[in-house]
Amino acid sequence: MTTVSDIGEAGLLARIQKILSKPHANLLVGVGDDAAVLRALGPTAVVSTDMLVEEVDFRRVWAGPSDIGHKAAAVNLSDLAAMGAAPRALLAAVAMQPDEDVGFILKLLKSLDATGRRFGAPLVGGDISKTTGPLVVSVTALGAAPKRRALRRHGAQVGDIVMVSGTLGGAALGLRGLQAAERVSPLLRRRQLRPEPRLALGLALGVCPGVHACADISDGLVKDVMHLVPPRYGVHLETARLPMTRGLHKLPLDVARLLAMAGGEDFELVFAVAARALDRVRQLAQSAKTPVTPIGQVIAQSGLWIDKKQPKAPGRGGHGFDHFA
Amino acid sequence: MTTVSDIGEAGLLARIQKILSKPHANLLVGVGDDAAVLRALGPTAVVSTDMLVEEVDFRRVWAGPSDIGHKAAAVNLSDLAAMGAAPRALLAAVAMQPDEDVGFILKLLKSLDATGRRFGAPLVGGDISKTTGPLVVSVTALGAAPKRRALRRHGAQVGDIVMVSGTLGGAALGLRGLQAAERVSPLLRRRQLRPEPRLALGLALGVCPGVHACADISDGLVKDVMHLVPPRYGVHLETARLPMTRGLHKLPLDVARLLAMAGGEDFELVFAVAARALDRVRQLAQSAKTPVTPIGQVIAQSGLWIDKKQPKAPGRGGHGFDHFA
Repeated sequence: MTTVSDIGEAGLLARIQKILSKPHANLLVGVGDDAAVLRALGPTAVVSTDMLVEEVDFRRVWAGPSDIGHKAAAVNLSDLAAMGAAPRALLAAVAMQPDEDVGFILKLLKSLDATGRRFGAPLVGGDISKTTGPLVVSVTALGAAPKRRALRRHGAQVGDIVMVSGTLGGAALGLRGLQAAERVSPLLRRRQLRPEPRLALGLALGVCPGVHACADISDGLVKDVMHLVPPRYGVHLETARLPMTRGLHKLPLDVARLLAMAGGEDFELVFAVAARALDRVRQLAQSAKTPVTPIGQVIAQSGLWIDKKQPKAPGRGGHGFDHFA
Repeated sequence: MTTVSDIGEAGLLARIQKILSKPHANLLVGVGDDAAVLRALGPTAVVSTDMLVEEVDFRRVWAGPSDIGHKAAAVNLSDLAAMGAAPRALLAAVAMQPDEDVGFILKLLKSLDATGRRFGAPLVGGDISKTTGPLVVSVTALGAAPKRRALRRHGAQVGDIVMVSGTLGGAALGLRGLQAAERVSPLLRRRQLRPEPRLALGLALGVCPGVHACADISDGLVKDVMHLVPPRYGVHLETARLPMTRGLHKLPLDVARLLAMAGGEDFELVFAVAARALDRVRQLAQSAKTPVTPIGQVIAQSGLWIDKKQPKAPGRGGHGFDHFA
């Protein structure tokens, strides 16, 4: 194993530059200058940043470098999807210990770049830094919205149908199995380690009249669905309609529903659609090869309602994931 | 003291949103959605990322939260200055332990935003994450270049004059004093903790014919000046010409020159100018209220030459700062 301190910062940078030197239409100047230079990001630039921390967001015993690189890209691309933006570039800053394996870092960045490129966003620049603590991968995604207004949160109107893409709960169930060192099915492993950002759907929703609000599901449906409505409105969810990832059906129904509603990290889109636009949205979803399911409705009473009841007062931060709860 | 785990991620986000809610012309959607939305970044977007890690890039015994926030912004803005770009927005991802002081994080982000705004780049979004290790502040700066081509490294031509802005060595001497817990003059403290990105000068150089290459000095002059030339060319520096920060003159000359040449973190611009453009550059520098000094020349022999001699073979990564050397 070659460690980072064996080859120094300059040596590591040279190797990174080599694996990232592929040209890309969006990129005028890539890694190796003071900053990257990109073609215009369209009339409206959409930018997001998300950081993965070892032992908090991933463990090396169950996540390989390619998994970590993919996920670091995917969680950021998912934010762009939720805004209806087209990805254009990624930046990555990585903090590592001096005895870090060079091969691990290169595989991680190669995977990050590959996932970005698959959606039009090569890794164009970054920073490497020393740390005394866990590995940190901080990614910024840059995108372009096709029109002046991006697809926002909070815009839902009373009577809107709440829809979700794909299936729910698989990422959380996969995590459970990985953490317990159990055998995990390839599907559940993929749902946890290799989430697919819903970019084709997000882009289509972003220009579809009647789509009023959208967010991605990172912290859990019950938390993220509330981003669709202003505080005076609420959301009513029907649990029988929740599309659950294959494998959840083997669990007791209440456990499966809890994972689907509060598990998080599915990186599906949840969005609010005027009833009149429902058919159009179904067509768009079909073109984007992404299943979508109506799971509830926006209501005039504030708060979250599940099967016509309000869940018991949740803890601080509500249900769903809170880093510090 | 209120800790982050006292108020949770949601509580911290709400407080951050409050201190960052000021409007800005560049910003269509700020903190609180899946991503930030900005007005067009011009024909050419310039983007850079730089991460500060506690115990590596700063220590709390000598750097307060406002210092850390300022520097996290300034080192990124300095990269944009070196590309001749105008700053438009900052993003910040912060990893912190659960017992972190909320007040510390808010002061840090407020200072980061204030420094960004002073140069046209408010803090528009970010991420907070838990860590078991040191505090990590990862910033991305977004800017716009006024024309299709940004100001690059490596473009220097033989015979070009090498110039540097401001003075050198102050940041390194300040760091020395802070690390030794000595009394440090306000000037040297400012040079280490509050570097000023040379944005006015960078923007002017970016559109000035005859300015062939530019970089900022983060790792030390002897390392960063070599970024100006392609590998087949070299740089000749004249030590007698080096503009040294006030306070270095009290040191033995060889120590002072070492700090000025290899100390790093001065965040001045070093650039290569065709002789015919020298007068124009002096005028532009005067308009930008930034002193500039010719310190050497680009030569046809490769490598670094100091006072007509080649310095002894430097260690891996050359002289100057290397995180892992």
